[in-house]
Amino acid sequence: MGHAKNKKKPGRYRVRGRIWLESAGGTLLGNGRAVLLENIRDLGSISAAARSLDMSYAYAWKLVDAMNRESTTPVVERSTGGRGGGGARLTPAGVRAVEAFRAAQNAFDRFLDEQTEELRL
Amino acid sequence: MGHAKNKKKPGRYRVRGRIWLESAGGTLLGNGRAVLLENIRDLGSISAAARSLDMSYAYAWKLVDAMNRESTTPVVERSTGGRGGGGARLTPAGVRAVEAFRAAQNAFDRFLDEQTEELRL
Repeated sequence: MGHAKNKKKPGRYRVRGRIWLESAGGTLLGNGRAVLLENIRDLGSISAAARSLDMSYAYAWKLVDAMNRESTTPVVERSTGGRGGGGARLTPAGVRAVEAFRAAQNAFDRFLDEQTEELRL
Repeated sequence: MGHAKNKKKPGRYRVRGRIWLESAGGTLLGNGRAVLLENIRDLGSISAAARSLDMSYAYAWKLVDAMNRESTTPVVERSTGGRGGGGARLTPAGVRAVEAFRAAQNAFDRFLDEQTEELRL
């Protein structure tokens, strides 16, 4: 999950975990969805993002659609009708959601390292 | 997961998550296994603990067996041959594992509340 393994205590226990952002409508964003949004942001289309993640377009679209429904405002907007079916980009709400998740994930990685250090097992 | 919902911001996003203790051999202990160990500790047998959790004895035993294999020392010991098949109790390592998980979980509940407060979405 990106946090460093504790090299001073080989074979000892570690605290691991995962976090996600949740709205009243359900899970908005965990690590997998955040990576998808980051790829849409960087590549400019859902199909290119799906390809870069070895994910089917149908599955990527299903995730985007779920996020758009579960967010108070959509996180991805599509420009239909362009060449190749048009592109997609993050809305300001989508940019903020990814940034908020990454900030929380970075704090969580530090939390897991601290808790692992404090384990007395 | 036990942490208070943020009552000041109805309908807003929350950071949620889960943690577990992991050894080189795999997952030692998440919330479900911790509850099982606490019930074995309090009730003195695997079968009574399973019943109190609406869990089959076979499944409870499978979890205990997995924990005993994944821990550097067993977490549950059984006293075979007693009435009704004998009881079970936590070893000192089992007591420490439950305590360590609960301490980490309490810190994690605070972490989630703090991160939810800091969300700007």
